[in-house]
Amino acid sequence: MMEQMKPMDIEKRSFAIITELLGDRRLDPENELVIKRVIHTTADFDYVDNLAFSGHAVQKAIAALRAGCDIVTDTQMVKAGINKTILASLGGEVHCFMSDADVAAEAKERGVTRAFVSMERAAALPKPCIFAIGNAPTALFSLEELMEAGKLRPALIIGVPVGFVNVVESKERIIEAAAAPYIVSRGRKGGSNVAAAICNAMLYQIRR
Amino acid sequence: MMEQMKPMDIEKRSFAIITELLGDRRLDPENELVIKRVIHTTADFDYVDNLAFSGHAVQKAIAALRAGCDIVTDTQMVKAGINKTILASLGGEVHCFMSDADVAAEAKERGVTRAFVSMERAAALPKPCIFAIGNAPTALFSLEELMEAGKLRPALIIGVPVGFVNVVESKERIIEAAAAPYIVSRGRKGGSNVAAAICNAMLYQIRR
Repeated sequence: MMEQMKPMDIEKRSFAIITELLGDRRLDPENELVIKRVIHTTADFDYVDNLAFSGHAVQKAIAALRAGCDIVTDTQMVKAGINKTILASLGGEVHCFMSDADVAAEAKERGVTRAFVSMERAAALPKPCIFAIGNAPTALFSLEELMEAGKLRPALIIGVPVGFVNVVESKERIIEAAAAPYIVSRGRKGGSNVAAAICNAMLYQIRR
Repeated sequence: MMEQMKPMDIEKRSFAIITELLGDRRLDPENELVIKRVIHTTADFDYVDNLAFSGHAVQKAIAALRAGCDIVTDTQMVKAGINKTILASLGGEVHCFMSDADVAAEAKERGVTRAFVSMERAAALPKPCIFAIGNAPTALFSLEELMEAGKLRPALIIGVPVGFVNVVESKERIIEAAAAPYIVSRGRKGGSNVAAAICNAMLYQIRR
């Protein structure tokens, strides 16, 4: 059997290799651990250039998490990937309404997307939330619509859907509107793994 | 609100864009839908070159799925991402032993990795399995050890861990040993999203 390294040692060595491979490239210290964890999760250095942060987005999100905020995701994969033990220790939990049977029924009846109904339900939660959107551009469009209508004030929007149709537009709109703190992967790349990694990068800065 | 496209229409258009962006690049028709779905999931065209397939791996896996085989994953994220409705309609289910409390306890007691105990448990399942490994190189090393000991005959190994430590080696070893049909992402890239996408690409070829 292989020489066994402890998971934390593997992670430390991985981050050291990432730092080495970044070479002279300087990262904003506030965002560095988020960017490196996304690279750790994807082995894709494009995220050094892709990730856009509104002013002090990470600090604001960490403050919200410390205060017990919840996280809303657009897929079960993002929910599965988030460290729920740390989140719970801070008083928060993860919600994903997208695959609820009654969400699908309501969306059909009203002629809107499941994403819209899901985000509307999240807006009705009694706590401030971080929105971790790794899949559905429609979720980002819905968030923007709800914010514009004054129905939602997210603690942070993690806008990292991946894909080829409406994806780039949905992310640029979050940046342009700048109606909430955001972390967005510009361009086509992103995904459920990236959304979960960004959440965990912030949770690990609070507690490990 | 945005003009609404149906999810299936978005997917069709996405695949058309991927095909267009591939240009003159020819893909092996047997593997084409797997490669394109991984690109659809990552927006990363590196997978055109990264993905290595043993002979007729996709056909063999589709035959196994039709016969009701199960899928074993190394993370809850891969499990969350697999289309379990289609899999169940074929008679299969998804197992993930990695985060079971008794797996952790047994691993500690025996001084082996959780991945090893998990893969050993999977080897004891009464059905042939597809192994979808998106995270843990130790899971791939464990599979190889169990196959070498004659304790395991996987229907397919999806070997797509991502990362910087032991990852490349674990995947190359699966290719060199060639002890089971495999789909492997050579190099550092991969992930839970890629592992789930490969499973779904095969499931969707059977039923949608």
